[in-house]
Amino acid sequence: MTENDQKAVVLLSGGLDSATSAAIARAQGYSWHGLTISYGQRHAIEARAAARVAAALGAASHVVQHLDLRAFGGSALTDNIAVPKSATVAEMPQGIPVTYVPARNTIFLSLALAYAETIGANDVFIGVSAVDYSGYPDCRPDFIRAFEQVARLGTRVGIEGAAVTIRAPLINMSKADTIREAVQLGVDLSLTHSCYDPTEDGLACSFCDSCLLRKKGFEEAGVTDPTRYAAIM
Amino acid sequence: MTENDQKAVVLLSGGLDSATSAAIARAQGYSWHGLTISYGQRHAIEARAAARVAAALGAASHVVQHLDLRAFGGSALTDNIAVPKSATVAEMPQGIPVTYVPARNTIFLSLALAYAETIGANDVFIGVSAVDYSGYPDCRPDFIRAFEQVARLGTRVGIEGAAVTIRAPLINMSKADTIREAVQLGVDLSLTHSCYDPTEDGLACSFCDSCLLRKKGFEEAGVTDPTRYAAIM
Repeated sequence: MTENDQKAVVLLSGGLDSATSAAIARAQGYSWHGLTISYGQRHAIEARAAARVAAALGAASHVVQHLDLRAFGGSALTDNIAVPKSATVAEMPQGIPVTYVPARNTIFLSLALAYAETIGANDVFIGVSAVDYSGYPDCRPDFIRAFEQVARLGTRVGIEGAAVTIRAPLINMSKADTIREAVQLGVDLSLTHSCYDPTEDGLACSFCDSCLLRKKGFEEAGVTDPTRYAAIM
Repeated sequence: MTENDQKAVVLLSGGLDSATSAAIARAQGYSWHGLTISYGQRHAIEARAAARVAAALGAASHVVQHLDLRAFGGSALTDNIAVPKSATVAEMPQGIPVTYVPARNTIFLSLALAYAETIGANDVFIGVSAVDYSGYPDCRPDFIRAFEQVARLGTRVGIEGAAVTIRAPLINMSKADTIREAVQLGVDLSLTHSCYDPTEDGLACSFCDSCLLRKKGFEEAGVTDPTRYAAIM
């Protein structure tokens, strides 16, 4: 581990990807500050997972920002729309799914940018991947680069010359790559939660897009999956 | 008034600029939906002004989204930092003032973008001006254009071809120009509130940047200022 005396804000959902992104920030020597956006989704359980990850990976601080996107509606993750289930990754619905939350990563990055500027962090980490993902438009490299331009033009730090960099270290990694990286960095993946539609006891449903991609990732990585599933496939 | 059968989201702070921006959307025939971000600022009174403006200007709907930016701190508008007071516009502090809220317009536009995508609006109106303003970086044309690129790349509607346009009709208008436009469009400016540091009774302080710019605008426009000030200059 190296020390670089720099602060970073890490968007922390409680999932596998953001935990790995936090572990990468830590391995690069950042003093990292976790930011979780609790956005009125069904899985408030993710916020608890985020707190566990923040503690396990030595976050300098962890802020949970509440934002009730149910005021807008429009997604299976915020609204009363059923989360789609499939038997395998190959059978997942094509195109942008109903779990898409309008402008979610734009909102998340905006809040991370505000937090970064406030605490004097020049880097924001986000655990998006454009490889094994659900087809969301705001997980792609072009989007990340466009947001960086907004960060440069729309903040005091940007005007004064020290732009905030958006780091998406998993952007070209498959889920299996991410799991291997997490294991190598010592992340306890049993602390993380990915399911879009968990049981009341917090067990993963096995069949939503997020469960399917997670299971496939563990299989491909050859790593034992510590997830507690409600159903056995 | 023309009808264009289009929906627009109008960011509505309760101030003079956003009310004029709403009146322009209305005059262009949009069915307009007001969005107020209540962000833990001192002047929750603005949210009440926004509701009055929405009603007076015939909003199709008005949503107040709560977002407590006090979790981040870092501004005289969210934190326990004194709002600066000056005798005249010429004596206002130079540079980006302590009333700057980190990444505020990026956050506001992100939420407006989410709301627009949810309700099927292709236009978002924001009442920023790069002329008589407080020196905030996120009020400039370059920032608005950069955000439009984010909107195009980071949303389902953008991917599918119908990009969301960010409309900033006041961007090149002085405060006096805006006041003249508001009067011409029949906006009752007594419903609006601009002061950063009002009294408990909702009277404007007279000496913050926002009061100074507002008073100067009315003087230059030759329009009687209906604002209720706590102090007489």
